Formats: sequence, structure tokens, C-alpha cells
Amino acid sequence: MIRIVAAKDFTPVSAVDQSYEKERDIVLDMINQIRQHGDAALQAFTRRFDGVDLTDFRIPQHVYAAAYQQVTPQFTEALREAIQNIRRYHEAQRRQSYMLLDEHGTTLGQLIRPLQRVGVYVPGGTAAYPSTVLMNVIPAQVAGVPEIVVVTPPDKEGNVHPGVLVALQELGIQEAYRVGGAQAVAALAYGTESIRPVDKIVGPGNIYVALAKQAVFGKVSIESIAGPSDILVVADDTADPEYVAADLLSQAEHGELSQAILVTPSSRLAEQTAYALEQQLARLPRQEIAAASIRNRGAIIITSDLAEAIEMANRIAPEHLELIVEEPDPWLARIVNAGAIFVGTYSTEPVGDYFCGTNHVLPTEGTARFSSPLNVDDFLKKTSLVRYSKTALLQHGEKIIALAESEGLEAHANAVRIRLQKEDDKL
Amino acid sequence: MIRIVAAKDFTPVSAVDQSYEKERDIVLDMINQIRQHGDAALQAFTRRFDGVDLTDFRIPQHVYAAAYQQVTPQFTEALREAIQNIRRYHEAQRRQSYMLLDEHGTTLGQLIRPLQRVGVYVPGGTAAYPSTVLMNVIPAQVAGVPEIVVVTPPDKEGNVHPGVLVALQELGIQEAYRVGGAQAVAALAYGTESIRPVDKIVGPGNIYVALAKQAVFGKVSIESIAGPSDILVVADDTADPEYVAADLLSQAEHGELSQAILVTPSSRLAEQTAYALEQQLARLPRQEIAAASIRNRGAIIITSDLAEAIEMANRIAPEHLELIVEEPDPWLARIVNAGAIFVGTYSTEPVGDYFCGTNHVLPTEGTARFSSPLNVDDFLKKTSLVRYSKTALLQHGEKIIALAESEGLEAHANAVRIRLQKEDDKL
Repeated sequence: MIRIVAAKDFTPVSAVDQSYEKERDIVLDMINQIRQHGDAALQAFTRRFDGVDLTDFRIPQHVYAAAYQQVTPQFTEALREAIQNIRRYHEAQRRQSYMLLDEHGTTLGQLIRPLQRVGVYVPGGTAAYPSTVLMNVIPAQVAGVPEIVVVTPPDKEGNVHPGVLVALQELGIQEAYRVGGAQAVAALAYGTESIRPVDKIVGPGNIYVALAKQAVFGKVSIESIAGPSDILVVADDTADPEYVAADLLSQAEHGELSQAILVTPSSRLAEQTAYALEQQLARLPRQEIAAASIRNRGAIIITSDLAEAIEMANRIAPEHLELIVEEPDPWLARIVNAGAIFVGTYSTEPVGDYFCGTNHVLPTEGTARFSSPLNVDDFLKKTSLVRYSKTALLQHGEKIIALAESEGLEAHANAVRIRLQKEDDKL
Repeated sequence: MIRIVAAKDFTPVSAVDQSYEKERDIVLDMINQIRQHGDAALQAFTRRFDGVDLTDFRIPQHVYAAAYQQVTPQFTEALREAIQNIRRYHEAQRRQSYMLLDEHGTTLGQLIRPLQRVGVYVPGGTAAYPSTVLMNVIPAQVAGVPEIVVVTPPDKEGNVHPGVLVALQELGIQEAYRVGGAQAVAALAYGTESIRPVDKIVGPGNIYVALAKQAVFGKVSIESIAGPSDILVVADDTADPEYVAADLLSQAEHGELSQAILVTPSSRLAEQTAYALEQQLARLPRQEIAAASIRNRGAIIITSDLAEAIEMANRIAPEHLELIVEEPDPWLARIVNAGAIFVGTYSTEPVGDYFCGTNHVLPTEGTARFSSPLNVDDFLKKTSLVRYSKTALLQHGEKIIALAESEGLEAHANAVRIRLQKEDDKL
């Protein structure tokens, strides 16, 4: 079922590029409703879309304790260890302000400080992922963001997924609301009576959430709009085809537009992986989704050698890149475009989705050419600091005037000149 | 002319928020033309909008030497010193990849590497600013971007502003093209026969350039869409009203939508600054623009004390914040939202526009709440690296499976399980 093609014959299949005009109109109207009517509109949308009538959106403290009874102890334990790992990995991303002095009394600095208030969107329903909470909240916490607020849609009884609740509690999140969809994004951006506005909104969601994030961008910051997930495996003859097939399917099961590609110089591996893929697909609960993904966008690309395989990978710029070859090290530096690189037989991609510590929010759809995994920097901002002394201005003032005048900006020149003149008059 | 208001009565005036639908349609069509017809379309648009017929867009080497004859030696010398200062400031922003190891054989890393190819848009005509070249190119160079390409519109004779040419030469830019407008942005994003596509486009421009950058965002990265410039001066009774007025006007002259605001507890300073403003305005070559800006969006806000002034500044989140008070230090840490802070009587804002070393590309329109000055990070991207050992997977595999299954992602669990089973079979 998966197509096997020579490198020269491969053309990538884009995810369908719909315009979503109808959905965009709906979302823009919803945002206006929230801006005008606040909580009343939030309540109405929650009734309409989530089927539950809530007057108090804040998740009450007592439900957290109860949530632990609804998950397995293994889950809680694994979650705690994942939190430690993710925190450890992201702590290495912390940054310091810096300061430069010179002998004329000039001090220049770059202050690096956390955003003040961040909103995290956590999807509900069948896509309620505790790992989403971890991956979006922990970098913000490590950055030192003082206020982190989480929104997540309730079910028909007004409840939230217990795994999500346990994750919130383990991370010490104090402020979480049972609201979802475009209405939650609008509330975070513009505020309502019960939800104060934030400076940045992060987190995945359905098309309405994505369109709402796009619409409020500018009023607040957003991290990015995630496209369908993708994986690209570069493997040689030493790779185990069953492992490769399993890894391809781990991304294919995300959605029908997910992209799973194997690039290899080994036609043996190509054929055996295609076979293993069929075998494993048949046993998957989400086989319909995974099969559609493989059919739509999957491919096995045969290259003449590993160099060409790496070149192909750079061209595709995958979200996840697995490198399963006999001697990976010489190839590593040549992988220029990838969100995350998983090296060797045991670095299967789900290790990074859940546990090892790296972030699973990664650049999709080829944007690894210029984008990065979600990281602590996404929750920091910089401010330049200039302290210019009188000595420095007297020494350099004429140069600044020359540059300003070359651009015809006389008022810029004047701001310097007026000071030089007054100092001169004092002499 | 400038309005003087009490803090409680101040309501900010937004820059007019036009929808630019007609302009957007024009730009989208131009982008399509460039995608379909490449250089031929580029040539046609250059003929139509710049009034010159070019067949070769690349700026020929010989014009650079000639440009030095058209600028003053003072300009070139000041430019060279500015380049040194800007380079020094930005070099402190360089970053290292990091790596974490643990005793089970796990290696996690974050690779930090430059973007491969970046395009810088430099406006032409009356807004041809050599400082634009410096502020956009130097951070990319410090980041280590191997290919930096500059585009700038030609005049009717096909020439480029000599100050811009000297700046390009001083920075060692090898690849520069005489093309501007939305067509130049489209060429950088999609490529033509003579211009290869880039990964990111930075630099200011008119509304067509801004709309084109917005339209190609996603295909390439962009830094931001700059709004009108703004300045906010926080000053007390010790400030010189002539300096304050001059500094307000230095931003007001940028455009009619620029915003210049003084916030002070001193009504004496307020009145004297308003007076000085009138006096200085009368002598400015760009007085019409500056006067319109002051009338449209200028304000002097009287607060009860400095604490309230700082609070007001944080609410407005200015691009440039000048702090001209007797004892600035206790207030510095309380300034949370500002693109750049200029401290003290001699730190007039043009110092930062041209010379001291900080970047003049700063977050406008209140986006300092969540955005940063242009910096080296804007030209770097990160890639996560995961090397999981067999030992590590055997030890943690079941936890990863538990987390994947809690989310109903069975193929994720399976990618781990299939490895654990095979290893188990080997025993």
C-alpha cells in the first residue's frame, strides 16, 4: 500500500491546503461575541459546543484529588518521572541578562525576563493529552512566568479528563478553566469577567482553535500553528524493518494527513518495511486513520546512498527524523533541517513524545528550515538597556548627527545637537 | 497643541487599523505572478513601479567603489564605528548547543545552528536608511548565517542609495539585488531564475512590503510586521524640557501615526515641554509629519507620582522608553514592558537608533509585552537530539507505554513494545 519510489521520482504530497473561509467567519464572530459579552458569551458557547451549562468556569480544587483515583498508579509514577526529565532538559535553556561597559561610561545591556501571564490550551475529548500539559507548561515554568493559566474543554457533565487534571496538579497549576474551542482562545486574548487576559497563548487544538489563535495574533503572541505531524526515518541495511514500520505508524496514527516517510539506500529494508507495515497496521486500533495517512502521504524512498538520503531529509525538513544506521555520527552534522533527531535503534520517536525530556512541540510541514522546538525562549522576552554618559555623548555625538542627517532625519540629529550645544554653552 | 491629561483621563489612541483589502489583493496577485513567471514578472513590476527597465538585478561590483565618492568621509567613519559597536553588542548574544548525559546511557541535546539563507529588505527612495542595513544584517552575520542576501529598490536610473551601498560594502555583503516592493519579497520567498529562495525575510518596508511579508509567512519565516514607531518618556522635575521635547519629536518625525508621550508627575515639566515642543517644531524640516503625529497620538500625562508613571509605561509597553529622573535605578526593575530603555539625560533615543550598538528594530504598538528587539536568536534555530540507549529503553519502556496508552495512542506504545519484546526474546 505504501508507495516505494526512487529518489529522483519522489514528489512530496502537501497536506490539503483548505482556505477554511466558513470556519474563519464563525471564529471571528465568536471572538466578537466574547469581546462584547464576556462570560455570558462564554457560557452560551460552552452550552452549545460542549453541551454543558456552567456558571463557574474555574476548575474547583476538590476535583483534582478525585482525579488520582481515576488513573493508574503506573500512570502517575511515569508522569512524575517524565516531569523531572522534561524539567531537567529545559532548565539547561535558562538564560542570563548581560551587560557591557566601556571606558567612556557607556553601559549597554540586554535584560532577559519572563512573560508575565501565559495561557495554555489543552484539547479535550478523544485528544485529551496529559503530555500536552507537560510540554507546554514546563518550559513556561522554567522561564519563570509568574502566571500560567490553563484552559481545557469540559465534557457533557462538565468534567475534565482525569489524566489532564493529574498533570495540572503535579505541576502546581493553580488557575485552570473548563472552557475550550475558539471561545477559550478569545477569552484568553481579550479577557472576560472571570478570565483575565494573557500575553501569549500556546498549545494545540482543532481547526477552530487554530483559526482563533491566528485571529488574536498581534493582540497576544502565539507559539505557532501546528500542521499535521510527520516523521522521516533514514535507515540503512542494518535497521530492523519491524522497528522502522512501528515508528512510521506511530506518527501515521495521529491523523489522515500525517506524513510517514522512510528514506533508505537498501531495497531489502524498503520491501521488508512495507511488508511489516501491512502486518502491524492490521492490529492497530486506529488502523483506519493510520492506513489513510500511509496511503495519502506515506512513502519509501530509495536513494543511491546515505548521502543522498540525508540530502532528501534536509529537503523535506521533517518534524521527527530517526537516524537508524550502522555509524550515525558522521551523518549527524550534515542533518541541517529537522525538528528533533532520534539517533539509533532504541531512540524510537515516542521516547521524545512522552518521557526523555525533549519537547514534543516541534516544527511541522517543513518549517524546521527556520523554526525550533518549543523551548524556554518562547516564554522570555528581551529589553535593551542603554545608559549613555555625558562623556560618551560628547565624544560620539557628532557621529550620530552625521548618520541621522544622512537619512534626512533632522529631529533625530537635533535631539543630540541640543545636548551638545547646551553642554558647550556651559563651558 | 499636544494634549495634557491627568493619568486617570488618559485613553491611548490606536494607530488607524485599516483592513487594506484592495492592497492585499494586489499583493497576492503580484506574488502569483512572480511564482509563475519569475524574472520576467520581476522585470515587469520593476518597470512599472520603479520606472526602470532592468535585465540584470544583481548590483554590479563596480558601483560600490563609486558610492564612497558620494558620501562624506564623516559618514563612512561614523558608519564603521557604528558597525563595530553593533557587532560587539550582538556578539554577546551568541549561543552554544548543549548536551546532557545520564548514567543509563541517554544523551539529550539541543543543537543551536544558524539559518542557512536569509533575505534582508532595505527600503529605497526617501526612506533609504543605511542604518536599516546594519541593524538587520549584523545580527544575522553574528548568528553565522552563511548566505545573506539584500534586496532594495532602484531609482529611475536603476541606482541604489549610496549610503546603503557603502553599508553593504562595509559589511561584506556579496549578494544584493536592485528589486523592491512586494515583488522582491515574493522573489525571496519563492525564488526566480536569478534569485534563489531564502528561509527568512527581515526588514521594514511600506504597506505593500508588509502585506507581502504577511502573505509569504509560513513558506518562510519573518521577524515581525513593524507598526508605527513610538516613544514614551518618564521624567521628573529634574529633566530638561528642551531635551524631552527634542526626544519626543525624534520619534514624531517618523510618521503621522508615530506616538510620542511624556509621563511625568511634574506639571512644571509638562508645561515647559509643551512649550519647547512648539518652539522646536517650527524649525523642523519634517514639521508637517511631526506636527500631525503630535496632534494625532501625542500626549503629556500627569501622574500623582513616579510609581504611577512607571505603571502607565508598563500599560502602554512602549517601543522606546526614556527614564530621565533624579534617581533612575530603583525604578529600572519595575519597568516590565519596553522594547528598549534609555536611562538618564544623555541617553537620547537616537543614540540607540544609530550608534551605541543595541538594535533599533524594536517591538511597536504595545507588543513589548511579549516581543523582543531583533537579536541573534532571530537567525538561529534549534534542533533537539535524542540518543536513547538499549539500557535506557529497557528501563523506561514500560513507563512510556503507560503514558502512550493513557492517551489512546496504541501505535506509539507499540513502537516501544516491539523493541522490548524482541530484546526479551533474545534472552
